[in-house]
Amino acid sequence: MSLNTFGHLFRVTTWGESHGPALGATVDGCPPGVAVDEAFLQTFLDKRRPGQSKFTTQRKEADAVKILSGVFEGQTTGTPVQLMIENTDQRSKDYGDIAQTFRPGHADITYHQKYGIRDYRGGGRSSARETAARVAAGGLARAALRHLAPGLEIKGYMTRMGEVAIDRERIDWAEIDRNDFFLPDAKAVPDWEAYLQDIRKAQNSVGAEIEVVCRGAPAGLGAPVYGKLDTDLASAMMSINAVKGVEIGEGMAAARLKGTDNADEIFMGADGPEYSSNHAGGILGGISTGQDIVVRFAVKPTSSILTPRKSIRMDGSATEVVTKGRHDPCVGIRAVPVGEAMMACVILDHLLLHRGQVGDGPRGVIG
Amino acid sequence: MSLNTFGHLFRVTTWGESHGPALGATVDGCPPGVAVDEAFLQTFLDKRRPGQSKFTTQRKEADAVKILSGVFEGQTTGTPVQLMIENTDQRSKDYGDIAQTFRPGHADITYHQKYGIRDYRGGGRSSARETAARVAAGGLARAALRHLAPGLEIKGYMTRMGEVAIDRERIDWAEIDRNDFFLPDAKAVPDWEAYLQDIRKAQNSVGAEIEVVCRGAPAGLGAPVYGKLDTDLASAMMSINAVKGVEIGEGMAAARLKGTDNADEIFMGADGPEYSSNHAGGILGGISTGQDIVVRFAVKPTSSILTPRKSIRMDGSATEVVTKGRHDPCVGIRAVPVGEAMMACVILDHLLLHRGQVGDGPRGVIG
Amino acid sequence: MSLNTFGHLFRVTTWGESHGPALGATVDGCPPGVAVDEAFLQTFLDKRRPGQSKFTTQRKEADAVKILSGVFEGQTTGTPVQLMIENTDQRSKDYGDIAQTFRPGHADITYHQKYGIRDYRGGGRSSARETAARVAAGGLARAALRHLAPGLEIKGYMTRMGEVAIDRERIDWAEIDRNDFFLPDAKAVPDWEAYLQDIRKAQNSVGAEIEVVCRGAPAGLGAPVYGKLDTDLASAMMSINAVKGVEIGEGMAAARLKGTDNADEIFMGADGPEYSSNHAGGILGGISTGQDIVVRFAVKPTSSILTPRKSIRMDGSATEVVTKGRHDPCVGIRAVPVGEAMMACVILDHLLLHRGQVGDGPRGVIG
Amino acid sequence: MSLNTFGHLFRVTTWGESHGPALGATVDGCPPGVAVDEAFLQTFLDKRRPGQSKFTTQRKEADAVKILSGVFEGQTTGTPVQLMIENTDQRSKDYGDIAQTFRPGHADITYHQKYGIRDYRGGGRSSARETAARVAAGGLARAALRHLAPGLEIKGYMTRMGEVAIDRERIDWAEIDRNDFFLPDAKAVPDWEAYLQDIRKAQNSVGAEIEVVCRGAPAGLGAPVYGKLDTDLASAMMSINAVKGVEIGEGMAAARLKGTDNADEIFMGADGPEYSSNHAGGILGGISTGQDIVVRFAVKPTSSILTPRKSIRMDGSATEVVTKGRHDPCVGIRAVPVGEAMMACVILDHLLLHRGQVGDGPRGVIG
Repeated sequence: MSLNTFGHLFRVTTWGESHGPALGATVDGCPPGVAVDEAFLQTFLDKRRPGQSKFTTQRKEADAVKILSGVFEGQTTGTPVQLMIENTDQRSKDYGDIAQTFRPGHADITYHQKYGIRDYRGGGRSSARETAARVAAGGLARAALRHLAPGLEIKGYMTRMGEVAIDRERIDWAEIDRNDFFLPDAKAVPDWEAYLQDIRKAQNSVGAEIEVVCRGAPAGLGAPVYGKLDTDLASAMMSINAVKGVEIGEGMAAARLKGTDNADEIFMGADGPEYSSNHAGGILGGISTGQDIVVRFAVKPTSSILTPRKSIRMDGSATEVVTKGRHDPCVGIRAVPVGEAMMACVILDHLLLHRGQVGDGPRGVIG
Repeated sequence: MSLNTFGHLFRVTTWGESHGPALGATVDGCPPGVAVDEAFLQTFLDKRRPGQSKFTTQRKEADAVKILSGVFEGQTTGTPVQLMIENTDQRSKDYGDIAQTFRPGHADITYHQKYGIRDYRGGGRSSARETAARVAAGGLARAALRHLAPGLEIKGYMTRMGEVAIDRERIDWAEIDRNDFFLPDAKAVPDWEAYLQDIRKAQNSVGAEIEVVCRGAPAGLGAPVYGKLDTDLASAMMSINAVKGVEIGEGMAAARLKGTDNADEIFMGADGPEYSSNHAGGILGGISTGQDIVVRFAVKPTSSILTPRKSIRMDGSATEVVTKGRHDPCVGIRAVPVGEAMMACVILDHLLLHRGQVGDGPRGVIG
Repeated sequence: MSLNTFGHLFRVTTWGESHGPALGATVDGCPPGVAVDEAFLQTFLDKRRPGQSKFTTQRKEADAVKILSGVFEGQTTGTPVQLMIENTDQRSKDYGDIAQTFRPGHADITYHQKYGIRDYRGGGRSSARETAARVAAGGLARAALRHLAPGLEIKGYMTRMGEVAIDRERIDWAEIDRNDFFLPDAKAVPDWEAYLQDIRKAQNSVGAEIEVVCRGAPAGLGAPVYGKLDTDLASAMMSINAVKGVEIGEGMAAARLKGTDNADEIFMGADGPEYSSNHAGGILGGISTGQDIVVRFAVKPTSSILTPRKSIRMDGSATEVVTKGRHDPCVGIRAVPVGEAMMACVILDHLLLHRGQVGDGPRGVIG
Repeated sequence: MSLNTFGHLFRVTTWGESHGPALGATVDGCPPGVAVDEAFLQTFLDKRRPGQSKFTTQRKEADAVKILSGVFEGQTTGTPVQLMIENTDQRSKDYGDIAQTFRPGHADITYHQKYGIRDYRGGGRSSARETAARVAAGGLARAALRHLAPGLEIKGYMTRMGEVAIDRERIDWAEIDRNDFFLPDAKAVPDWEAYLQDIRKAQNSVGAEIEVVCRGAPAGLGAPVYGKLDTDLASAMMSINAVKGVEIGEGMAAARLKGTDNADEIFMGADGPEYSSNHAGGILGGISTGQDIVVRFAVKPTSSILTPRKSIRMDGSATEVVTKGRHDPCVGIRAVPVGEAMMACVILDHLLLHRGQVGDGPRGVIG
């Protein structure tokens, strides 16, 4: 079962609702001896935290993460790590009017149809607030990666928001944390700001595309054929709220390519095989090649908008919905640290899984 | 673990290599009392079978499936069903020259790097031949769905192959099984044929996009938040050989949309909620809405082409690879029945899972 | 993986250390619509709580359980239920002297050898305090059983403590909750009290045998062959701290029996099959028969005793250990509610699993 | 899910019925590079094979195991290993009379009640014939252990059969394979033979107790708290047909012990910690200590006996059952190689799991 859990050996179970007392992640399988503390995890939560800029919801949440178990004197012990985040600014009254109404594009109606009961406050379990728990778990995964795979880097950034997109020639990782959009290009920021201001003024919202790259992962990660690295990344990213598509390397564009264009040719470099290109996104047959691992995903526009949309109530009567709560005009922005967290968890998980299955000893050498 | 297994309650484990004595699927969790026989399963295998048209590999495989367990007097018993397909036309000699060479775009190099040993014959475990086992399991899933959800239909078809694409206005499911491309539009067939003939003459290959639709699934399937219906579909499709992208509903295009465009408005129909559109692809918050469930995936062009590509040998020396084996110029064609099989397995799995978690009794009614 | 998790569909993950800030259970897969609140769960925790009688540790823990998620307006919602118990009386100073010493019969040495780091305070994760989380989860399972299988009863009691044992002819469930030993026979209580007082005065401890019975479970529960009902019960009970043996029905005594003695003969009763006896403990081929499901387990004597035992320190030097902490002379007493909790979780899990696999509809009828 | 699968990383799924065309084990997660062939596996199957002595069923089965996948040029490749055993001597006619009758003590009635359909021939899936697949998988596990943990030995033997039991002072592993009872004491063989002949002449059957020991396993195996080494061994042994009890170390007798007797004292030896005794059976807190790992299990007497037993038919009418098929008077004998196989699988699984979680690097040293 993996209903609220993902991962093979590094297993993350998230729990909690948007407006309950708390939410969190129960992480089982973190290796022992990993140095970590709440302050380290908090740096990642702060990136995802609401209210950070004028482009994200003004809900005020400290999103302070507490480590309740599994860490002793600053190190993981190999036992489950409980990461809890208390909800503080719940303002349930904002949501009272949706108790009987299904918001279009939201999970209100399907949770009702499935379970016959739902915590309607802020979307309950279906709220993107759940991703705070993922980010906390991702921070723990990064701490473990720092320990097991020094030099490995994971970086996410926006590549598109509605009609604006990045220039791939200008990607500079150093810029990503210096602007409100996690944009890898300082020059693009003003255009993106203007574009999103227009969207907001029009009481509308907009979709986004995010790319997450893992640099420095060794060759050999991924467990064919149903625990392939790309399979697990697809699952991880598609599980994020509002995601509608996932791509590895060329992604959907591969349908348009010819074989002569697509195959990355192989050369022998000083430190092992090298490739002429990376159409594959760093994964062949579900196993990492040692190149950058590249995944992209698309986030739909926030369904909660100020423009009225037709819907029905629980009794079947017709109504119109205008969402007056505090919402992001582009939820894709805050999906960037979430995508990074999922990548960190998946990569760590496969490092551990590979070690278990194959070991640390000599494997297939080339040359 | 789900290394060679997928599914929660309907669990499919595939085994076998391209040129070993046999391959198959061990299916655990099929409900009892399902009428099924080898002839029924064979109809699906015949759709995927090589050598069916001039556009697929000329390898001659009967792909005859045998049921070795779990079926008694024409009905499943609730015990594991073993589905075995013997390999008959193995021609291992065709592959002798790749024992020491890594084919670009193939998993040869990563299997070697991961395991230090690989069955190089025909790609071994990484061969698309593994998908025959999925199709057999998918046939069993369809038999169970026929039993549990009469009226539910699953249909896959090609939507793009390189530069040719279908006209969405002309989709007609009745046409799909009448042409070599699983095209839902008879009129398009000649153009696709001509295009692929050109690709083949140019000793090249081409990618493809496949869409699979499930019609008639009830609302309520999907287990948030890491066993979402879309999450499991993404994982299922991405695990198919050569797949580089997966989309639900609007897919990657959602990144370009505005909230006013994207939200499917809700109305009350005679039999329950109805929607003005299906941007969501039939899934909200990971749970089915009762609309068509729509998934698309992109298959990269066959890496095995007659045009020379640069590569290296196991000793690190440089070489050029020209694949002389029997290969499909567009592997995407045969991916259609595979995509259908994965959809059937995922939908059945979630029907069972929902029944287990929530039961068959009254759930959330509307109106 | 099931490292800190058990169950197929009703999945319980426990977390937390004896002297950390809190411990708890993350329960995934509880059906929706189950009425439950903290007060109901607390009744079970109070049975296991330390300091209840002169025969259990005097550690003062309120063991107050909080529901942090998954319950809305008094009912489960189908989302994960987080059950947290804060540690309040930690007195870590009592344990400072064992930071460098391995207590004989304890997990101190193996945790150190496995992980290279351990939270030594009170045994950390290996403390029987972890079972409080199981009892909380068991309470939730009971609430769901009350909902799904009204009439089903689960009862645990002591059958042996060192040299004193119950008279099986005198078992009366009504007595169990009226004495400090969970004894099903009021007449036996004084002898047991006197016996345990002697043990304690001798600065010693003693083992125990507990029997747990589930009455009223339907026939058909259990998923052959590695999710058999008896297999899962064996695993559940053996996972409890200090348990060294598990028996179903006749248990180990079956090795001494002849076939003519052991087979429970079958008769047709008014409501279905009836049996002449229950040597099988209510399980045949891993599936429940509808009779009482009977499991027994043995708990070793508390290793923490006031009598000095030889041991070593982390540096390998020899030492003697006298445990001065607050410990139970017979940990078996408090294992009774834990055994009940495990039974409740396993039975509920198999009810859900059966429903998922086989459904609620008509199955094999007899007569 | 673990319905027909056990293991965390070394995952064994068995399939097949007693009288179907074949049965087998799909083994996923075997490490790559393990030397193994059919002849090696066959040595273990031959120990379990029927018709080996006058004390086991005279059914004639070659039990020839075939490797269908996952092994290439004499070595495992890291992909699933399919082990198939064809059924050859099925004699279904012997079982025709039980199609409508439930044999007391057998799973006929519970399979019918659960599934509403059953392959009644020879007990179908519930037949002890399923254990042949376990023995094949256990052989593969031994091959991997030979590779990963040279020096580790696993040995099973009978300790009791009805009223005869071994003298623990006379255990000699060298004798075990030299007699029909897997007895570790040559001197005891004649008495056991005479005893079992009497049982058989009386048209009866008898239970047995088997002990399995793993010598040479490293300290540190076992994953608290629900994947404890003893928990997984309990589950593994209880899943074997007809097993009613499982003990670790002192087992059920622990209930009678005092703390002063039970705690194994610790000393520092030349190569690490040593213990004064092994009441714990080599496991503390669910983790191996490095001592012998000792598990015992009880097998009930064969329910199929020539003495008439009362039962009912599917239509509810009363009948008497006399089993005329070919059956073992003591099924416990052939359970010895099965118990060894389960131990081998569990130990290998935990070696891999430990490597994945904790790694091969330096862990907690002592001294």
